[in-house]
Amino acid sequence: MTLDPTKNPDWKIAQDAESRMKTVETLAAEMGLESSELLPYGHYMGKIEQQAVLERLAGRPDGKYVDVTAITPTPLGEGKSTTTIGLVQGLARRGLRSSAAIRQPSGGPTMGMKGSAAGGGLSQCIPLTPYSLNFTGDIHAVGAAHNLAMTALTARMQHERNYDDATLARLSGMRRLNVDPTRVGTGWVMDFCAQALRNVIIGIEGDGRRNDGFMMRSHFDITVASEVMSILSVARDLGDLRERMGRMVLALDRDGNPVTTADLEVAGAMTAWLVEAVKPNLIQTIEGQPVLVHTGPFGNIALGQSSVIADRVGLKLSDVHVTESGFAAEMGYEKFWNLKCRYSGLTPDAAVIVATVRALKSHGGAPQPRPGRPLPEAYTREDVGLVEAGCVNLLHHIGIVRRSGVPSVVCINKFHTDSPAEIAAIRRICEAAGARVAVSEHWKKGGEGALELADAVMDACNSGKRHFTPLYDWNLPLTERITCIAREIYGADGVDFEPLAAQRLKALQERPDVNELGVCMVKTQYSLSDDASRKGVPASWRLHVRDVLLFGGAGLVCPVSGDISLMPGTGSHPSFRNIDVDVNTGRVTGLF
Amino acid sequence: MTLDPTKNPDWKIAQDAESRMKTVETLAAEMGLESSELLPYGHYMGKIEQQAVLERLAGRPDGKYVDVTAITPTPLGEGKSTTTIGLVQGLARRGLRSSAAIRQPSGGPTMGMKGSAAGGGLSQCIPLTPYSLNFTGDIHAVGAAHNLAMTALTARMQHERNYDDATLARLSGMRRLNVDPTRVGTGWVMDFCAQALRNVIIGIEGDGRRNDGFMMRSHFDITVASEVMSILSVARDLGDLRERMGRMVLALDRDGNPVTTADLEVAGAMTAWLVEAVKPNLIQTIEGQPVLVHTGPFGNIALGQSSVIADRVGLKLSDVHVTESGFAAEMGYEKFWNLKCRYSGLTPDAAVIVATVRALKSHGGAPQPRPGRPLPEAYTREDVGLVEAGCVNLLHHIGIVRRSGVPSVVCINKFHTDSPAEIAAIRRICEAAGARVAVSEHWKKGGEGALELADAVMDACNSGKRHFTPLYDWNLPLTERITCIAREIYGADGVDFEPLAAQRLKALQERPDVNELGVCMVKTQYSLSDDASRKGVPASWRLHVRDVLLFGGAGLVCPVSGDISLMPGTGSHPSFRNIDVDVNTGRVTGLF
Repeated sequence: MTLDPTKNPDWKIAQDAESRMKTVETLAAEMGLESSELLPYGHYMGKIEQQAVLERLAGRPDGKYVDVTAITPTPLGEGKSTTTIGLVQGLARRGLRSSAAIRQPSGGPTMGMKGSAAGGGLSQCIPLTPYSLNFTGDIHAVGAAHNLAMTALTARMQHERNYDDATLARLSGMRRLNVDPTRVGTGWVMDFCAQALRNVIIGIEGDGRRNDGFMMRSHFDITVASEVMSILSVARDLGDLRERMGRMVLALDRDGNPVTTADLEVAGAMTAWLVEAVKPNLIQTIEGQPVLVHTGPFGNIALGQSSVIADRVGLKLSDVHVTESGFAAEMGYEKFWNLKCRYSGLTPDAAVIVATVRALKSHGGAPQPRPGRPLPEAYTREDVGLVEAGCVNLLHHIGIVRRSGVPSVVCINKFHTDSPAEIAAIRRICEAAGARVAVSEHWKKGGEGALELADAVMDACNSGKRHFTPLYDWNLPLTERITCIAREIYGADGVDFEPLAAQRLKALQERPDVNELGVCMVKTQYSLSDDASRKGVPASWRLHVRDVLLFGGAGLVCPVSGDISLMPGTGSHPSFRNIDVDVNTGRVTGLF
Repeated sequence: MTLDPTKNPDWKIAQDAESRMKTVETLAAEMGLESSELLPYGHYMGKIEQQAVLERLAGRPDGKYVDVTAITPTPLGEGKSTTTIGLVQGLARRGLRSSAAIRQPSGGPTMGMKGSAAGGGLSQCIPLTPYSLNFTGDIHAVGAAHNLAMTALTARMQHERNYDDATLARLSGMRRLNVDPTRVGTGWVMDFCAQALRNVIIGIEGDGRRNDGFMMRSHFDITVASEVMSILSVARDLGDLRERMGRMVLALDRDGNPVTTADLEVAGAMTAWLVEAVKPNLIQTIEGQPVLVHTGPFGNIALGQSSVIADRVGLKLSDVHVTESGFAAEMGYEKFWNLKCRYSGLTPDAAVIVATVRALKSHGGAPQPRPGRPLPEAYTREDVGLVEAGCVNLLHHIGIVRRSGVPSVVCINKFHTDSPAEIAAIRRICEAAGARVAVSEHWKKGGEGALELADAVMDACNSGKRHFTPLYDWNLPLTERITCIAREIYGADGVDFEPLAAQRLKALQERPDVNELGVCMVKTQYSLSDDASRKGVPASWRLHVRDVLLFGGAGLVCPVSGDISLMPGTGSHPSFRNIDVDVNTGRVTGLF
């Protein structure tokens, strides 16, 4: 018997389910892995030797490939991971071999406002605590690789300042890189929401000292926004990862040429930290299906996709493999469609768009809910009018998926407080627009509550209506590609580039590999526009691009819009206050 | 057949031995662990459920307890870890069940100048690569716990600046802590030698922004120097760890009162990150004996001991358990003797003092060798006079161990370049001073080369001459305890306290728990004095204490002497340049 999710927090449900979970060896054997292809990490987690699996099963056809995306969320989240897990559980109840690919949660949101990201209610993955905290160390390894590069760069700048060319050559056998301290684009990383590290000055010398670094402005981003994480998302294998690791551009030299990790001779050592991280992780749903966990979140400020490697493995081992892309369709699904699928060569059979009555009410005009505060009254009483008004946002996201040529299913992720009339209104509006709709109670009932969703997804997969088409031609200039995304996907009237952004785009456009660089937008997830406060489908606005980052290793140009930061902040009511450990059992309490 | 260490780098020897190593399950079973007491991490590493082991074996008598320390080293290291592993291998060849406890290497030295810290030649532990890099994630977890505390502190300072008391209470239900920004003693951590982060300014606000932290000076230390690491070293169990985690003092408030992790309500969440890290790790020597790995290095700027927990477990499972303390006897052994043994309640049966011809020549007046540079000529030709002159340093360390009442063995860690006359000179001088001496060729010959050492250690253990006595009474004032260490152990004429240090000691002396706080010295490891350039046994000098840190959770007062920094630097010839990955096998090359 599982616990009642209306009466128990997620972590209690997880601990209860963990008392019955399979060992990772059993889980791996059931999904068809050979014992040599599993690296156990404790009794219930493991890593998959993906190279061996992909070579052994090269001739096996892939299963169906389903992406889960969502409407524009509230800060409380609309249950995209919960729906991914619920769908996999529902598919299993229909006798299908199903698997999920999700991303490892970042310590920032886990300690800051989310508590966890393992799904919720009766659609969770377990073991909850290790998954939510250190897990198998992948995010830590990404942070180490990234900060090693910055250690190499900043030490080099100090040595080049302190020594003349002859001394440098004698000491280290290296040529002068001549890094321009005003054009060091890359900062350091830390996987917490440490806003105090957003803007820093580093390398402050003590009196008469010359070995305390090079004084300059710098910054910290959250680790999961690191380019190294994006590389882990898109790399096809360890060889591809090694090559990409050397192409990261950390700065420009005084002539404006890129200074890369290869120039610093640090790319091999960075890769050494990632040898285990390149292997996807394996855990299970509370109903026992395999969940591959790989790479990190943040579809708003990074690629934010579960990895190409995890999907390739999942597709070989399952009838249906369900992957997740970050935040709403205009962010996560657009990147899945135009970036990840190009890197992987895979194309989805269907996409699920998760909607909630709560988010629709927020788009219909209800006051915005905030984490850790009581819900405004509009969310706790029936209000069909608010829901109907908010459906414009949902219809916009349906249109985005349709534009990609992929059959979609709207999943109404039902809360036990939603009224039948509210649910009926959403169904009516979506069906009038020609969309496939499923009401799903996986949060409350697990896989049994997701049967309608599972059936609708299989219907979409088997509909024969797939005409997967990229949004734009990569041979178009960068500005045109950005403008295409802004107009056709976000619904903007156009794009304004600040002088800094325009200048950087102009320089990037001159790179010989510009047509191999993808456009990875950095934008708030809380609105279709670049202003988080604008709900529904904002009209009469222009996208404001204030900066452009180059992720040379991941092969991405990242236009930064609005005032979004790559280092989120910790609010005044952080979730770490609720977290503790039962020292007799070692169990962590308070993750929710 | 093992490879010849005179012709192969350490990482090649390790890879060769790894092709024959036992699985961690076999290793654990052979040492008497039950299968439920092992958490495998891949096929060759694991964690030990120490609480279960200690409860099951509570009635079993402990094995013999041996600490390995050294003379004052050169920057190349004198093979303390190598000797620890070699001794365990030698003891096994004598039919004894032996185990080692060593510390996980820090990414800083591994990437900066050491390459690895797994021993060397035919006395190494394996698997080398994971041990040398992420391992099972303990150092990462320590860094996460530490930086979470700093995230909590700095976010709180921002919120307290931005809101009045009423708003604060409404938003977060918390009282005002009133942190004094000029008295935030704790910095952030990162596990690389990033000298550019030694002195930083954080929390720089954008124009008109109030949510980018609180602007102030701050600093980064290397993660292994974190108080959290010291707590992991001394904690007896998870309950003890949880309590200590709340007693960390991060800052003072405007009235001079300590602001702790408990005040920030973050100690439970910090502990949550450490639930797995509290379990010691298990790997093997290249000859198959168990090696427990727990906590980090840096006996010069931290406690630098393998953990109390690892030693308690090792002593229950072995006839002889060999533990290691950081750097030379005046640093690592003094802390083992007067701090770790008090925390653990354990007392050693013998201590090994590792000496090399190389280090003795450096104390005898040879020019100092430097990592990554050719050895000066004095080290590559026979020079008995230099060796004899350098023995003053060795005799001083023998005296330190004698002072503790523990029988000692001088281990001459023989290099294949040492001449018989040089070795004979050391033996003669030590034996004239009444010391037990063993020449050991474990680097070249593995356990077979360590039989003389193993026999000498067992002779010391069984000599019946143990009168273990603490150096000082903890009821003495802090300044007297520091002066006692400086005079009796370092050979200083006295101690000069800078005004800041004197003022902090005065405040600490007024704490009601002052007699429960240990003195943990921070000093260079390259000299008995606080000046790294002074070799041999410096005379006519006074210890210069410029600052004093309080590690309230670990229960330590740390006087900082000389210009030693808690964030080492990366030099102009870093080892990361040599490290790479064979992408076909996933093997890391270039760790040495």
